[in-house]
Amino acid sequence: MFEEYDVIVVGAGHAGCEAAAAAATMGSSVLLVTMNMHTIAQMSCNPAMGGVAKGQIVREIDALGGQSGIVSDKTMIQFRMLNLSKGPAMWSPRCQSDRVMFAQEWRNILENNPNVDFWQDTVKEVIIQDGKACGVTTSLGIEIKSKAVVLTNGTFLNGLIHIGEKNFGGGRTGEKSATGITEQLVNLGFESGRMKTGTPPRVDGRSLDYSKMEEQPGDENPGKFSYTNTTPLAKQRSCWITYTNSEVHDLLRTGFEKSPMFSGRIRGIGPRYCPSVEDKINRFADKDRHQIFVEPEGWDTVEVYVNGFSTSLPEDVQYAALRKIPGFEKAKMFRPGYAIEYDYFPPTQLKSTLETHLISNLFFAGQINGTTGYEEAACQGLMAGINAHRNVYDLDPFILKRSEAYIGVLIDDLINKGTEEPYRMFTSRAEYRTLLRQDNADIRLTEKGYEIGLASQERLANVHIKKQQVEEIIRVLSTTKVAPEDINSTLETIGTALLKEKTTLSQLLKRPQISIEQLTTGNPEIANLFVSYLPDSVQQAEINLKYDSYIEKEMLLVEKMNKLENLGIIDNFNYDVVTSLSYEGRDKLKRIRPATIGQASRISGVSPSDISVLMLFIGR
Amino acid sequence: MFEEYDVIVVGAGHAGCEAAAAAATMGSSVLLVTMNMHTIAQMSCNPAMGGVAKGQIVREIDALGGQSGIVSDKTMIQFRMLNLSKGPAMWSPRCQSDRVMFAQEWRNILENNPNVDFWQDTVKEVIIQDGKACGVTTSLGIEIKSKAVVLTNGTFLNGLIHIGEKNFGGGRTGEKSATGITEQLVNLGFESGRMKTGTPPRVDGRSLDYSKMEEQPGDENPGKFSYTNTTPLAKQRSCWITYTNSEVHDLLRTGFEKSPMFSGRIRGIGPRYCPSVEDKINRFADKDRHQIFVEPEGWDTVEVYVNGFSTSLPEDVQYAALRKIPGFEKAKMFRPGYAIEYDYFPPTQLKSTLETHLISNLFFAGQINGTTGYEEAACQGLMAGINAHRNVYDLDPFILKRSEAYIGVLIDDLINKGTEEPYRMFTSRAEYRTLLRQDNADIRLTEKGYEIGLASQERLANVHIKKQQVEEIIRVLSTTKVAPEDINSTLETIGTALLKEKTTLSQLLKRPQISIEQLTTGNPEIANLFVSYLPDSVQQAEINLKYDSYIEKEMLLVEKMNKLENLGIIDNFNYDVVTSLSYEGRDKLKRIRPATIGQASRISGVSPSDISVLMLFIGR
Repeated sequence: MFEEYDVIVVGAGHAGCEAAAAAATMGSSVLLVTMNMHTIAQMSCNPAMGGVAKGQIVREIDALGGQSGIVSDKTMIQFRMLNLSKGPAMWSPRCQSDRVMFAQEWRNILENNPNVDFWQDTVKEVIIQDGKACGVTTSLGIEIKSKAVVLTNGTFLNGLIHIGEKNFGGGRTGEKSATGITEQLVNLGFESGRMKTGTPPRVDGRSLDYSKMEEQPGDENPGKFSYTNTTPLAKQRSCWITYTNSEVHDLLRTGFEKSPMFSGRIRGIGPRYCPSVEDKINRFADKDRHQIFVEPEGWDTVEVYVNGFSTSLPEDVQYAALRKIPGFEKAKMFRPGYAIEYDYFPPTQLKSTLETHLISNLFFAGQINGTTGYEEAACQGLMAGINAHRNVYDLDPFILKRSEAYIGVLIDDLINKGTEEPYRMFTSRAEYRTLLRQDNADIRLTEKGYEIGLASQERLANVHIKKQQVEEIIRVLSTTKVAPEDINSTLETIGTALLKEKTTLSQLLKRPQISIEQLTTGNPEIANLFVSYLPDSVQQAEINLKYDSYIEKEMLLVEKMNKLENLGIIDNFNYDVVTSLSYEGRDKLKRIRPATIGQASRISGVSPSDISVLMLFIGR
Repeated sequence: MFEEYDVIVVGAGHAGCEAAAAAATMGSSVLLVTMNMHTIAQMSCNPAMGGVAKGQIVREIDALGGQSGIVSDKTMIQFRMLNLSKGPAMWSPRCQSDRVMFAQEWRNILENNPNVDFWQDTVKEVIIQDGKACGVTTSLGIEIKSKAVVLTNGTFLNGLIHIGEKNFGGGRTGEKSATGITEQLVNLGFESGRMKTGTPPRVDGRSLDYSKMEEQPGDENPGKFSYTNTTPLAKQRSCWITYTNSEVHDLLRTGFEKSPMFSGRIRGIGPRYCPSVEDKINRFADKDRHQIFVEPEGWDTVEVYVNGFSTSLPEDVQYAALRKIPGFEKAKMFRPGYAIEYDYFPPTQLKSTLETHLISNLFFAGQINGTTGYEEAACQGLMAGINAHRNVYDLDPFILKRSEAYIGVLIDDLINKGTEEPYRMFTSRAEYRTLLRQDNADIRLTEKGYEIGLASQERLANVHIKKQQVEEIIRVLSTTKVAPEDINSTLETIGTALLKEKTTLSQLLKRPQISIEQLTTGNPEIANLFVSYLPDSVQQAEINLKYDSYIEKEMLLVEKMNKLENLGIIDNFNYDVVTSLSYEGRDKLKRIRPATIGQASRISGVSPSDISVLMLFIGR
């Protein structure tokens, strides 16, 4: 009934959509199998993209030629650049999305990709021949052949939903779970585990009193995610902030004995940094309030997401407690919050391409790897889609280094360290975070995306223009001198030391207090220097200039590390012959099978002396 | 957790949405309970509203103040007035809809109704006290109280999906079924049955060759459903027509032995007038082709609905046969067609308000009553919502007569005759179909809708204007004479007899060949007569004039029948004391409990002599 596809992608969430779009754009014939054509790219949890470290990931996906940035830009209702008061490594774009539009836009993109086909069905098994994935079997009993399979099952594998003492099977509220895949993979020798995540109640915005909350509007000059020509928002919707209080906490505590988390009914481990509200009041008993973000679910809908109030307590407890939050006195719920347990596969079973060690041409992406978050899922989908395509066409693996992208950090962390709890990205996970900024993702990654046939020629051209402009601007800043009489009044306004002699603009800009914007304000001659450049180029040049010492320091570290990263270890290397390895080191090395000495050095349990032994052995 | 609502509506399809909107608009506090907030107003089958007799129903819903017409107008992608070559009683509006927009628009309308609350959950049981419905119990174990309950469960009650030899529980593909309600109601003494319906495969429009099909564009001057100020389409999408052939039929026949219909696995009876393609080739073995309408699912999507190819044959048989249809040679399916069996309750258990005889304040609407079709469901929802509200507020039942509306015909048929197979509306079911036209639904019904607090003042005002204009126009037509020299050249062009003397326009219009449009073309003086009138008024006047003899004849019949309709029978009338009733007549009368002698006369099994006996007994 079906032709043989190059790549079958199972699941159409953030990971599945990026995987399908990437492989198809690069030329693979792709079949996207989803349980329901109407729920492609559903935002199961909060209606938002980006945030600290996550926003950087979206920018990276975009720079490589992925779609999440474009979809986000086209469907957002609010944009904020977070952490603007901190250094540029911390600046993080975040948007609120219109949930329905987001899903529609993704479907639209996929439908417009001539290499993407769709099939609505539930996958029960991966077809495996000679240790290779070569298709799937569905609940209708259909066998569909392919050269590679990407599994992006989200929370659907044996999904079990908990609300208070009740629990029932489901992949999301109101949707069925998926069975069969875990059982098959475990039989094949995969290790699987259980994780847990949760979601807050949705409420009726008409029943809230916003006058009791703080308004959180979008940025005055809203930015966007994509480096392409998507347009920034002309109007925006506000979010609102309110707080829990001791009355709320007391009411929540009345449900603790029925809590599936505290009773032990939930065995899966939940996301530490996205805890349920009962977790928060339990773990931080001294805190008498927690922040609640009240997020609209779209342009027109009255449905509201209660960010910060994720819970699996009995629904009547949720309800009673909710109504004690300022502004929520008359709140009506649309549905209660719930927790969901699902199967994942510890990601140490993966190569850095997201292909499994055990079965070739089988890729995992998203929550199945123990991560949490739309952005984390999307970037894994992208990388799995790229590498599935490259496997099929016998091309080299496409791997991003830790020094090149948050995406590199994420995958390197997963495959070397594994994760005991849902893995979320933070800036602190990146050792080179001054390099991995949201403003330079295009410069870091677009050429690579272009080389593999994912990023368009236009994207590449834009990057070349930006690079050239940045160079020119830095030259201008380093060669243009200003005289004290021309600039001192500006410096006085800023409150920084006055000039005594002519000074280059670049020297002035090294002062932390001074920005290009301040120098140009009221100084048309200086402003004139920049008129022919794109704002992004000017900003990039300014960051490069201001932070060059930090950047240089990190670059040196990268170079040092790269020496190790460039020392490859062949895939079937026999660790048993290296007799002086520690027991644990050998064990981990045999399991993880690092591709380089650098990767080996990051495996927990592999000691520095193991690394020395290894390097000696392979002749360094 | 919940306040007591006036009305709880269970299910948010066409019936549930209209029921909720109607009761809420009239002033009831309404809770709409749906299994999934994301699937409110899903078009489960074809993406279209209206059609023969069904389009009239949508116009009636609109005239009464319902929402289906407005939603259809705002989300349609194509409009056609069917049967324009026949008399105006047959004219039937029909549109293709954008499936996603249709659902969104409905949700938008409901969210903007301050009296509608939402709850996402599955209802397991109706709470009944002292023979009265007073709330529901959900799968979360929550009890929600109300003064009335409207059940609109569609195909979800013990839904069982069949594809070839496979079957699995589900309310729609990819969605869970609902259990508990049937079991409870049967225990209470309700009779239930099993029905079946089906849906065709969805295919990828990109894989079709439209050059091999006939284009079916929308009307050049597209009309609309609603009498309100919705705007007609400026652009439209075309549908396409193709045909099955003997090769297709032969291939389909190869699946007959695995057919759940022919094997007897499906016990429920399917819709006779919306048969599966295997049914068609089986029943009409001599027909060597059947028409297939290829309908786009929306403005942008590539998903296509294969109207006429409903099937539950094995998916590989569907696929192979589909590819033999001209234009479908390379067709790719998104999902196979399937059949679904579900529980219904024979509607003879209902009053003409759609309240059950057995349990007061419990109303049924839509497929649960054994009907098929969006429009049939929507109008029942509307009537159930209206009467639920009126029950709660101790107001008289709101009932439409067979002479007043297709809605009246539908409900009267259902409750008196029941239905053994999914009931669909046809013009032939209406004995007064010259009266029940799509052009005059507002004149027939808007005053009634206004009186009960559903239709707006603005709608009423528009009807008053229309009525007045129609009268004026008829006066003008009856008094304006044209001279032979002024009109004969026009009559010659039309090809009708020339005038010999001055004649009124109304006399000319009685000729079947002549329309107002023809008379005004090229005759500015005549055209001038109508410039100050609304086009709808002119059309209405023309129809009234042209068909006055038919209309009058039917009015006389109505008057005659009304005498019987006005003879009421009290609700708890004791038929056992009327000794000369036939055995079957008494039995049926006791079960159906007709409200009038007129209704009694339409019950199958009640003979004319039973009616005479009854009339004698109650003193006529």
